[in-house]
Amino acid sequence: MSNILAINAGSSSLKFQLIRMPDETVLAKGLVERIGLSDSVFTIEVNDKNKMVMDIPDHEVAVKHLLEKLTSSGVIQSMEEINAVGHRVVHGGEKFSDSMLITDEVIRTIEEVSELAPLHNPANLTGIHAFREILPDVPMVAVFDTAFHQTMPEKSYLYSLPYEYYEYYGIRKYGFHGTSHKYVSQRAAEMLGLPLNQLRLISCHLGNGASIAAIEEGRSIDTSMGFTPLAGVTMGTRSGNIDPALIPFIMEKTGKEADEVVNVLNKKSGMLALSGFSSDLRDIEQTADKNERAELALEVFAARIHKYLGSYAARMSGVDAIIFTAGVGENSDVIREKVLTGLEFMGVYWDPSRNKVRGQETFINYPHSPVKVMVIPTNEEVVIARDTVRLTSQG
Amino acid sequence: MSNILAINAGSSSLKFQLIRMPDETVLAKGLVERIGLSDSVFTIEVNDKNKMVMDIPDHEVAVKHLLEKLTSSGVIQSMEEINAVGHRVVHGGEKFSDSMLITDEVIRTIEEVSELAPLHNPANLTGIHAFREILPDVPMVAVFDTAFHQTMPEKSYLYSLPYEYYEYYGIRKYGFHGTSHKYVSQRAAEMLGLPLNQLRLISCHLGNGASIAAIEEGRSIDTSMGFTPLAGVTMGTRSGNIDPALIPFIMEKTGKEADEVVNVLNKKSGMLALSGFSSDLRDIEQTADKNERAELALEVFAARIHKYLGSYAARMSGVDAIIFTAGVGENSDVIREKVLTGLEFMGVYWDPSRNKVRGQETFINYPHSPVKVMVIPTNEEVVIARDTVRLTSQG
Repeated sequence: MSNILAINAGSSSLKFQLIRMPDETVLAKGLVERIGLSDSVFTIEVNDKNKMVMDIPDHEVAVKHLLEKLTSSGVIQSMEEINAVGHRVVHGGEKFSDSMLITDEVIRTIEEVSELAPLHNPANLTGIHAFREILPDVPMVAVFDTAFHQTMPEKSYLYSLPYEYYEYYGIRKYGFHGTSHKYVSQRAAEMLGLPLNQLRLISCHLGNGASIAAIEEGRSIDTSMGFTPLAGVTMGTRSGNIDPALIPFIMEKTGKEADEVVNVLNKKSGMLALSGFSSDLRDIEQTADKNERAELALEVFAARIHKYLGSYAARMSGVDAIIFTAGVGENSDVIREKVLTGLEFMGVYWDPSRNKVRGQETFINYPHSPVKVMVIPTNEEVVIARDTVRLTSQG
Repeated sequence: MSNILAINAGSSSLKFQLIRMPDETVLAKGLVERIGLSDSVFTIEVNDKNKMVMDIPDHEVAVKHLLEKLTSSGVIQSMEEINAVGHRVVHGGEKFSDSMLITDEVIRTIEEVSELAPLHNPANLTGIHAFREILPDVPMVAVFDTAFHQTMPEKSYLYSLPYEYYEYYGIRKYGFHGTSHKYVSQRAAEMLGLPLNQLRLISCHLGNGASIAAIEEGRSIDTSMGFTPLAGVTMGTRSGNIDPALIPFIMEKTGKEADEVVNVLNKKSGMLALSGFSSDLRDIEQTADKNERAELALEVFAARIHKYLGSYAARMSGVDAIIFTAGVGENSDVIREKVLTGLEFMGVYWDPSRNKVRGQETFINYPHSPVKVMVIPTNEEVVIARDTVRLTSQG
């Protein structure tokens, strides 16, 4: 048995779960917010939820508080009972096609690919450095959002751009949410009772960010996000794909710079822009029957995903199962209904009564449906813990 | 009977066909190139092809030469035998959902929407003005590339961008090649012997520019091009869709301005960039067996179209027929093969021996295939002539 700390560090936040392996029991979980700002908030859930407001100037202090809380609450007796730490890292570029035991060399490489994720990788590294300071002898593993998609073939990941953009600048499709797509695809195989390498799966990770992946024989062969998490379907605040010629047009019309326009595409578009009032699907669903723009947002969001299902079925010459996961995918029967309606031509027969489910593992297809449809709550932390165990030989 | 002149005016060119209606016989056709430059080239084909080099300073002079040639060659006895002129106009914005009899008001509106097609609409207008000068009493009609797609519903044409971008700046998906998609969809219904309003068609217009359209009951309900003809699939020199966040990244890496980057996306990307040597599919096909990059270009091009077939089948809850048209679509069995392979899951069974066809109307599916697959040479000029007859009441 071993205790693994799964960490997701943002620029001013630190999410954590302490997971006991191999039984995958969550011993504690929580979140530190507003690190480096006044009135930081430390939330930890052991048996009940405990929320404290204090000043936490940096990630090292956050880690110290975290370790202290874990011992003072009795979850562990001492820091020695943390056997390894797994860190989520957003971007592994083309360097990492699997999780990696963290060494100085690995940290240098993560720094190298940081220009591909200038907001995320440096924040993830801040978390890694803080733990290295405080737990210098504990082995650590980096788990990359992009790694699962490194199996995509050239015809999927290459843009139709000057080839030297790929060679010199690393411009290609990377894809994200890999840890989630990997988790649900493995879980789907277990639920289907079939080997993963005999399955063609389409995984729909629909949260505030959303991406679709075509997973053939357990390997990602295409995905909707691209060089960055902006591409693909409509999301909470992100536009997804648009005509690229719109960027200079919007610049001219609004007087914005290119990066300001892309900022609008990332933060002020998507469901927020379509509905006109919220990026949160729950808010939008609640008003859709009396608000045209809210209904429109649902229609656009679902239509984009619906088309990806056809597209990725074509990509794999058919599909064996469709998976819904993440906040919206797990909880919104409204979106699942809109996404799934009209796919009988490709063998999808779903059961409206089974679709009335929230956040639990289940099949929502009719028994006779050639294509199975599944809801599978995602669990990125458990993948981080598993990979950390595998690469640190904790047992 | 009436003679209709179908005109496609570019900034330095004028394409024409003189078509006798209602039998749709092409009496003469040709092209004036390098208008306004030295050594303009005038090519006309009546019985045989006739090519002349001369100086043609502007479109009015081009029109004069054209009319003179038509009479001197005996195709018509006098200019009075031209009963009407139909002009291709690229962009009709949201103003025109059908072809229009040209009036001062219509010209003003075409000028208004010119900012949506700053390269094309002014050139098209130059052609209209030249004919108005020389044939002031002959009725003329404008036929818009965008009009056929004006039937798209909001959920297809709206981007997930701030809604005011649509309201104030007209930012939405317009789609292009409408005249071609309309022609082949009507022809497909005739060949199938079924009413157009009972069919779900996917039309693949694959030329140097390429677009796919989902046509339900004779109406375009979705299409791959967008606000401009840059969007959608890989094309001869155009990138099609990319992650929009790439534009500021490429700007930073190359020191280019946003519009210079979009110029690269329009003119130096696509098949040209992937193959590294040509935007012409014929060149690429010839070297594909010994040139990896040429093979890659074919794979990427076909894969993007292949995915659209799945996507648009999903869009219409199935498809009755798939149509290939334009230069590549009519002539490349290699591309059709790659595009069609692996669509049995949606009812597409195509016959490799029937696929060995170039530039002729035919079915290439197996007889038992639920989804029919057709090659239909496009004919935009005949649509221009038909619409011109319809709107000018020439019979």
